[in-house]
Amino acid sequence: MGLTIGIPAEQLPGERRIALVPDVAKRFKALGVELLIQRGAEAPACIAADDFKEVSWTDSNDAALANKVILAVQPLSSEQIAKLAPGTVLVSTLQPYQNADRVRQLAERKITAFAMELLPRISRAQSMDILSSQAACSGYQCVLIAASHCTKFFPMMTYAAGTIRPAKVLVIGAGVAGLQAIATARRLGALVEAYDVRPETREQIESLGAKFVDTGVSAAGTGGYARELTEDEKRQQAEKLARAVAQCDALITTAAIPGKRAPQIISADMVAGMKPGAVVVDMAAESGGNVAGCVAGETVVVGPATIVGPTNLPSRMALHASEMYAKNLYNFVSPMIKEGELSIDWEDEVIRGTCLTHDGEVKHEGVKKVLGL
Amino acid sequence: MGLTIGIPAEQLPGERRIALVPDVAKRFKALGVELLIQRGAEAPACIAADDFKEVSWTDSNDAALANKVILAVQPLSSEQIAKLAPGTVLVSTLQPYQNADRVRQLAERKITAFAMELLPRISRAQSMDILSSQAACSGYQCVLIAASHCTKFFPMMTYAAGTIRPAKVLVIGAGVAGLQAIATARRLGALVEAYDVRPETREQIESLGAKFVDTGVSAAGTGGYARELTEDEKRQQAEKLARAVAQCDALITTAAIPGKRAPQIISADMVAGMKPGAVVVDMAAESGGNVAGCVAGETVVVGPATIVGPTNLPSRMALHASEMYAKNLYNFVSPMIKEGELSIDWEDEVIRGTCLTHDGEVKHEGVKKVLGL
Repeated sequence: MGLTIGIPAEQLPGERRIALVPDVAKRFKALGVELLIQRGAEAPACIAADDFKEVSWTDSNDAALANKVILAVQPLSSEQIAKLAPGTVLVSTLQPYQNADRVRQLAERKITAFAMELLPRISRAQSMDILSSQAACSGYQCVLIAASHCTKFFPMMTYAAGTIRPAKVLVIGAGVAGLQAIATARRLGALVEAYDVRPETREQIESLGAKFVDTGVSAAGTGGYARELTEDEKRQQAEKLARAVAQCDALITTAAIPGKRAPQIISADMVAGMKPGAVVVDMAAESGGNVAGCVAGETVVVGPATIVGPTNLPSRMALHASEMYAKNLYNFVSPMIKEGELSIDWEDEVIRGTCLTHDGEVKHEGVKKVLGL
Repeated sequence: MGLTIGIPAEQLPGERRIALVPDVAKRFKALGVELLIQRGAEAPACIAADDFKEVSWTDSNDAALANKVILAVQPLSSEQIAKLAPGTVLVSTLQPYQNADRVRQLAERKITAFAMELLPRISRAQSMDILSSQAACSGYQCVLIAASHCTKFFPMMTYAAGTIRPAKVLVIGAGVAGLQAIATARRLGALVEAYDVRPETREQIESLGAKFVDTGVSAAGTGGYARELTEDEKRQQAEKLARAVAQCDALITTAAIPGKRAPQIISADMVAGMKPGAVVVDMAAESGGNVAGCVAGETVVVGPATIVGPTNLPSRMALHASEMYAKNLYNFVSPMIKEGELSIDWEDEVIRGTCLTHDGEVKHEGVKKVLGL
């Protein structure tokens, strides 16, 4: 009896992704691994069950959870974790900094839990980086939302009666999501300005055809993220940004700090100073928002602006987001499989760095510190 | 006392456009014309009242209607038409083929009504062509809707774990809206196929980087529109199209015949044969729809596909749509103004061709014939 990987259906309302896609299933099979998918898990991602070849199916969530390795998108519920056998290897997002109870439960249940958010951001691990792949989806979706709400064309339009000027789009935060937003807005023909506290992003921003907004504030941090700014720096940043915000037709904010509330970058005054009909898409809505007045999951009109606070953006394009996510997971899990059996190399810094709990202990020092465990 | 042009606020729910924008107001002023805008007409289009210089404002719809020339987007209601003084010049869309009562009332009230839909499609009149300018808005919006509902990226994406194939978009109907849809989908990086019954569109389609779907059916018509197909032609067209429909991720249909119900091009069987998660945007939803199962104003799931039936697409981008519409109207009206006074040249084929009613009579032969007046 070889190794079986279980894929339970996602439980979170609105989650349409799945942690396994047909192409990736084929590659797992080639490693000598069996796959057991909960029936219906594939449908929300618009994948036909028939496209999975040589996999097994179950109607039971419990049966999907009763396997040596479990792949999932969203964290399992505490009821689901309670059903996992000790020693189960769980690979999924686990929001490790946000839920101490879950981390404790995973340790107590002796689950070997890999929280994909913890993946070390080293170049060898890039192909496993779900934060990057899903952020690309989010950045793209933010631009579609902004364009849909915008009262203007994004591109310059020439028609028989004249020329229509392109829309001005301002993107704040030039991580993977922000860069994808810049690229997408540029594809649509908008004039794009972008800003990031990390000055090294200037070149990337400019290479995508956008203009860098220079505020004179630098906050290069570690792990590819920005450090938190001081109050003085925040004030200087806000003054310089206010002008760009007042001139844009669409503002997309993507500033996140892992494990912390998103920084508020756009104040109520800055929103009040926007053009009539300006649209704001706050990608950080779920973690507190970059924009004053943003409500997660809602579209609100605040003074001249419409502020959209989208949630679970990758799920809106569930097929491609699942494809990217599943490939990331395959690249992470497949090195642990030797001759069809699980064989975890605990000396591997990628495996160690991503491990949240193992053998009854919380293993990740950063999470232990933040949660006080 | 010179000529005053009145701009009443639009009455149709959801209509956010306005028939006058600040730039165009300035140009009318330069002709020696006064402008009277109903307060609030500018707000839904996200135009600041202060941006209009040297215009007058009124809170009264009656006052806005009590002027020699009236500019509007949507047809006036019968209550509004009843208030117009005999001899008033009304320039707006009037849906002339759809409402015999309105045409009769306009004639009885001795209104000089110009229905912008009737504008002769000759090259001199292109700069006045509201159907084209508003169709450009509609085509662009259809692609944003399709991309927002699509489970895939439109562009090809290369990320650390591989490459994501671009989405396949099929556009049916290559008029102004269809061509704009093709151009926008191409901007976003999709693989685009397109089809039109008029074979002369092949070159235009290909010049935008899309592939022409050759069905072997030709239906070149008059006035830039297609003629209606015979039953045999429809069958042949459907067979060839079905294959393209089954392969696409997003389908955008834009086939319209002026004054008639839109042709149904996509049958229920073709919808049933689409990929799981495919999205259909039926631009002809308001005039009966090109797609079986489409409901105007709704988004419905039919088998594997999601069918969106958007209404009043230009109104979604009210600022630029108003800008284009207002410039079209200026180009049509300004030649009628000599030294600040109205002076209509009834010998002008553009003016004659656009006139619906004048001096107590229905003037347009085509409308008279269709409506039996």
